[in-house]
Amino acid sequence: MKQKYIPINNSTKVGVLGGGQLARMLIQKGHQLGLEMHVLCSQSQEPAAQVTAHWHKGDPQNKSDLKSFMKCLNFLTFESEFISGSVIHKINQEIQPNPQIFPDPLLMDQLQDRWTQKNLLKKSNIPTAPFIQVNQFDDLLKCPALFPQGFVLKKRMWGYDGYGTYLVEPHQNFDWLKSIIDPFPQGFIAEKKIPFKRELAIQIARSSSGDCVVLPLVETQQRDHRCFWVKGPVLHSQIDSLIRKLKSFLKKIQYVGIMAFELFDSSHGLIVNEIAPRVHNSGHYSLEGLSCDQFTLHLKCILGGKLTPVFLKQKGFAMVNLLGESDSTPYWQLPSHAHLHWYGKTTNRIGRKMGHLTALDSHPKKALKKALLEKRNFQI
Amino acid sequence: MKQKYIPINNSTKVGVLGGGQLARMLIQKGHQLGLEMHVLCSQSQEPAAQVTAHWHKGDPQNKSDLKSFMKCLNFLTFESEFISGSVIHKINQEIQPNPQIFPDPLLMDQLQDRWTQKNLLKKSNIPTAPFIQVNQFDDLLKCPALFPQGFVLKKRMWGYDGYGTYLVEPHQNFDWLKSIIDPFPQGFIAEKKIPFKRELAIQIARSSSGDCVVLPLVETQQRDHRCFWVKGPVLHSQIDSLIRKLKSFLKKIQYVGIMAFELFDSSHGLIVNEIAPRVHNSGHYSLEGLSCDQFTLHLKCILGGKLTPVFLKQKGFAMVNLLGESDSTPYWQLPSHAHLHWYGKTTNRIGRKMGHLTALDSHPKKALKKALLEKRNFQI
Repeated sequence: MKQKYIPINNSTKVGVLGGGQLARMLIQKGHQLGLEMHVLCSQSQEPAAQVTAHWHKGDPQNKSDLKSFMKCLNFLTFESEFISGSVIHKINQEIQPNPQIFPDPLLMDQLQDRWTQKNLLKKSNIPTAPFIQVNQFDDLLKCPALFPQGFVLKKRMWGYDGYGTYLVEPHQNFDWLKSIIDPFPQGFIAEKKIPFKRELAIQIARSSSGDCVVLPLVETQQRDHRCFWVKGPVLHSQIDSLIRKLKSFLKKIQYVGIMAFELFDSSHGLIVNEIAPRVHNSGHYSLEGLSCDQFTLHLKCILGGKLTPVFLKQKGFAMVNLLGESDSTPYWQLPSHAHLHWYGKTTNRIGRKMGHLTALDSHPKKALKKALLEKRNFQI
Repeated sequence: MKQKYIPINNSTKVGVLGGGQLARMLIQKGHQLGLEMHVLCSQSQEPAAQVTAHWHKGDPQNKSDLKSFMKCLNFLTFESEFISGSVIHKINQEIQPNPQIFPDPLLMDQLQDRWTQKNLLKKSNIPTAPFIQVNQFDDLLKCPALFPQGFVLKKRMWGYDGYGTYLVEPHQNFDWLKSIIDPFPQGFIAEKKIPFKRELAIQIARSSSGDCVVLPLVETQQRDHRCFWVKGPVLHSQIDSLIRKLKSFLKKIQYVGIMAFELFDSSHGLIVNEIAPRVHNSGHYSLEGLSCDQFTLHLKCILGGKLTPVFLKQKGFAMVNLLGESDSTPYWQLPSHAHLHWYGKTTNRIGRKMGHLTALDSHPKKALKKALLEKRNFQI
């Protein structure tokens, strides 16, 4: 699918499905590139709706809302994989003119489902934890023999930030999972628990013309299953070989856009835990840390822009999430030594991603220290 | 006027008067900081109105529009000095609650008028070309004796990008100026023509708490009186002494915000040509070139944020304006080696500022070369 680079103009209309912070930052970067950025979401107060004149009131899951939204656009992309790709694909065949949609919505359906996602990874020989399909409680009875070191039960659909993920340690009784599995007809997977030294992540952008750009490997730290900080770049002896496999995976599935790979750094090497077919929290550092950020890269990919290698602006970078610690209205002082991106969410709650800070320095550790220090000026 | 740093929150509302590209970039940076950014301008298609949900339809010169706009705000600032500061000052005394306004609107009145502006500079011993007031044609008759090397006639009000500026060479007949002076009751100044080697510019940000941050000295090149490119940083033996004077000037006039000083690098040293009490085209490079950009700095100043020294991200930077070369719809390819900021103007015309490109490199010249090369992908 070779494609010539597409000229952009003032009236190139790009739509984003979903109104959260990822859509907000896509829109902000789209404006810089001169694109007319549209968003479909329910509330005018959502993070993305605040930063454009082209907010479309509606539900990204509603066919009629989708239809009128899509009719206005030249290009359509997603801030979340939790959409019905087949519905969007069908609508797009019904309307004229219709937008170019990236990533391919039918592929999005396969990637949003952990079962089909893991099968795609397996077919491309991407190292990932062994897994089985779990449709009913009895399927779990195989797990102790298959995964004697423990296993993780994950909802096939709509899991994020630890929601829909259940850890079972070796010899632990897991009858309690019955009440979780039965009411959820979309099913589950169970996979081997992977002990790891640390969690890493890497992003690769692939353009509609087939160009790829690889972003630096980063370390991520979770707190209560939510990303707390990211720092990098990180070196790892196996990363080059993994990148080769990931690139051929992206080519095989004809992916267009940026993709994030969450990795375990384990005693058996690098293992892909999960993938996110979109811009991702582990790449927010790129806004200030790289010569081209993940949002611009994603837009370039879907618009068929030429991709060129990215480079670090300084030797170390770190991103710290500003997570809600209460339900009070947050307040803060403008940062001096870090870059702030506040998402404008109107209500605070514990663990909610309210914004993030990025700092650069001569070493990742120094950058992280700087960002954490700056975080103290935020009462969230 | 010492002031404690003000805590910001989700509902801190900042308004910008004027809907052009300077307002657009102020709004984009304000969103990052978590501010609710409002704009008052006539058309929904104006550059700034496109990038926020809080566009207020109205004319920044209309009292009733101003009044309803100002009532919504905690802070108000300007994208242009061509406003009636005294009107705004008066309205602000009439409404409750009222926004904090920076820079002080009464000071803006003095700075928008070249006669009072030059007098303020003179009082602070800022080197600037000798000048006289011109209210009628006969006042010009003194000029040949005062300025034997030629002089420049400038409208006191509303001149920009060479509009309202008329050069008279030595011994040149200037009767043609009669038809220009008579219909313009706001008056003129005439100042000595300064031969210069190159044009430079420098920006200083001064916070409401009195902190100052000085941005790098840059070289600017004009084409047809419009800024074509900017590169830097530039070294100059006299700059430190000039910066000291400029800082005490800003303190004396109690200026709050960022100010740009356009300079002539002449055989008599550095001479201040004009000042702009706002964010300025000569500082657009700062979006990618510095640790903190001019828009964020201006917002920090008016919100009472703490200012810290800025540093270069790379050793050289350059900014190239994307100026209209026709009245056709522009189109372009997304840049690979430069950062694009497109302003979203709906109509193109010759000389109009449609966007800009910034490039960084190990030397200003290299950065300029890169930005100029990237410009070739734009059909404007």
